[in-house]
Amino acid sequence: MLESPMLETADVIEGGDAVLLTFRQGIRRRFHAIWLRDNAQDAATRSPDNGQRLIGLADIPAALRLSAARVEAGRLIVAMAPEGREFAYDAAWLWQHAYDREPPRQRGWLDAHRATWDASLAERLPSADITALGRDDATKRRWLADIRRYGIGKLTGGPITDGALLEVVAQFGFARETNYGRVFEVRSEIAPSNLAFTGLGLPAHTDNPYRDPVPTLQLLYCLENSAEGGDNRVVDGFRAAQRLREESPRGFELLAGYCAHFEYRGRGEVCLRARRPMIELAPDGELIGIRFNNRSAAPFRDVPYADMADYYAAYRRLGELLESPEMGVTFKLAPGEAFLVDNTRVLHARTAFSGEGSRWLQGCYADRDGLLSTLACLEAAATGDDA
Amino acid sequence: MLESPMLETADVIEGGDAVLLTFRQGIRRRFHAIWLRDNAQDAATRSPDNGQRLIGLADIPAALRLSAARVEAGRLIVAMAPEGREFAYDAAWLWQHAYDREPPRQRGWLDAHRATWDASLAERLPSADITALGRDDATKRRWLADIRRYGIGKLTGGPITDGALLEVVAQFGFARETNYGRVFEVRSEIAPSNLAFTGLGLPAHTDNPYRDPVPTLQLLYCLENSAEGGDNRVVDGFRAAQRLREESPRGFELLAGYCAHFEYRGRGEVCLRARRPMIELAPDGELIGIRFNNRSAAPFRDVPYADMADYYAAYRRLGELLESPEMGVTFKLAPGEAFLVDNTRVLHARTAFSGEGSRWLQGCYADRDGLLSTLACLEAAATGDDA
Repeated sequence: MLESPMLETADVIEGGDAVLLTFRQGIRRRFHAIWLRDNAQDAATRSPDNGQRLIGLADIPAALRLSAARVEAGRLIVAMAPEGREFAYDAAWLWQHAYDREPPRQRGWLDAHRATWDASLAERLPSADITALGRDDATKRRWLADIRRYGIGKLTGGPITDGALLEVVAQFGFARETNYGRVFEVRSEIAPSNLAFTGLGLPAHTDNPYRDPVPTLQLLYCLENSAEGGDNRVVDGFRAAQRLREESPRGFELLAGYCAHFEYRGRGEVCLRARRPMIELAPDGELIGIRFNNRSAAPFRDVPYADMADYYAAYRRLGELLESPEMGVTFKLAPGEAFLVDNTRVLHARTAFSGEGSRWLQGCYADRDGLLSTLACLEAAATGDDA
Repeated sequence: MLESPMLETADVIEGGDAVLLTFRQGIRRRFHAIWLRDNAQDAATRSPDNGQRLIGLADIPAALRLSAARVEAGRLIVAMAPEGREFAYDAAWLWQHAYDREPPRQRGWLDAHRATWDASLAERLPSADITALGRDDATKRRWLADIRRYGIGKLTGGPITDGALLEVVAQFGFARETNYGRVFEVRSEIAPSNLAFTGLGLPAHTDNPYRDPVPTLQLLYCLENSAEGGDNRVVDGFRAAQRLREESPRGFELLAGYCAHFEYRGRGEVCLRARRPMIELAPDGELIGIRFNNRSAAPFRDVPYADMADYYAAYRRLGELLESPEMGVTFKLAPGEAFLVDNTRVLHARTAFSGEGSRWLQGCYADRDGLLSTLACLEAAATGDDA
């Protein structure tokens, strides 16, 4: 975000429907009267206690107009008719919230806080010591910011204790309980209810795409790992989607434009189904989610016949990109180590395991809202020299 | 879903890329070789233990072709090259999963399990006795099916006990813990962190649009309600969106096509923000979500200047529709009564309360995935005579 230039002039335009602001260097931004009124910061509009808006649009006259506008001490002052009141806005705040600009045009654009990655992330894989995470706000803030940026972070130095992962989750948010429990045991079982609970290798996948809403975070915490194999691999679904878009814009649009079906049936007590696209875009094209899981993909039936062959070709190609060695980062967790993935974006995989030893991970779902809230508060509290 | 007509013939078409099935009465459906192979039901493709797929597309040759197809005892049998294996598919299953049809064209179409409603739902507002819900599967199944259809259900006859709402949630799913707790107290507070915790009236809103993912269900359970006022009102956001679409297709598209911003800042420890549209459509136009909350709407900054005035006009009109008396259902909860709303769709409101008595509700969030799973299992278990 560019620092706000000084606000110089304000002129009522469009018969009072809007104001034209001119900042230094002649940069112009227009704001509508209704937008300014709705976003007024006075104590009758916004609760000083909690910042919530006290009025609805029904409380704002439809005939609202700007009757005057001026710049005073770097602030915009507008008078509103028919209310006959004045409202003031900081220039920097207006600059930050200006909407008088072209919307993004590229399908699959990314939020500025996010960056995609490939295998080269291995050299700088975000990681933090679990003890430091709990004691030091700067460590926590950096680790959470890395999760926001890359969707993946490792943790080391934790206790080798049943349930320790819940204390990690409590550092930034709240566990999401599901039919798998608050905590689920990832180890080889006899008659497993899910292939995750076998020694089979699992290709890169997001968890629970058959659930809506999907768990947006997953923590996998290692308690034992003396088995042969059982390495973890993570891969950035956003990077894979970007590569697909470069190779085949049509393939990208097919996976974003039609819903896939996902399903998981546990024995008699669970029957989860979801209908969502493999590549999820916001209505203005922001890339916001990936769902990819060969185990739980149900028959696709909302892709029309004319597009199904190309849809499958794009699905196949996305899978190839996800499995491509130059795309992923592989590691083997030691007991007391863990990793957290943004399950709306980063896929995880594991190699098969077997042999003399044993492998026991505990898993837990949580959600991005709590994590991003914790991060935003830490960032707000951080002084400039540490930020 | 029409019952499956008899499958009569199967012909390989498109050089083996697909098969053309002819059902009785000449109804034709085509299926691709890759789709059939990916959805094969044999034990090497799908785990007999848990139904999960054991192969990925990488395990299916790109050169896959159908070398032969026939109908045998009402089933489709296809031979696949180069694997040289045969696979069988039930005709009824193929009929149910056929995708050789036109996709829905209407923006804002609804899932067949859902129906929109207005004030006339008051006469048949879904309701169940809490004791019966816990004891009788048919009662539970019908009540959950009503939630799926209408997004609202009342409950009566429950204990007047702190935390009783969690036992209700456990009947169908899992509570979602947030910064407000697993359970939050809805009563008048001094220095409230949220306007919900005052005696103020609240216009129709969905909860927590500043959270992503939003809690998809909300249960509000009454423990005391002797105050004057404090009536609850519920309104179907989907019906309001449909009405907006009828009145103003452009207004509907603006609210669906641009993201709004929502924000909630608790004192220092919470800073939740989300960027999502007020009307959410799946990529193929299914109406899947409503976010509407005047208290937590943040400045909209991703609607371009040229569309902002019309965006606000649509936002205003949607709010008028939501507050319109012919749209909502009003009731006053007695102690031991509760209601559950689908928070992605049904808005709730309350009138102001005050006076001699007191009003104490407990609230809890949960998610649709668990509810729909419980319902699907109950439906699968129900015999035909009761279904």
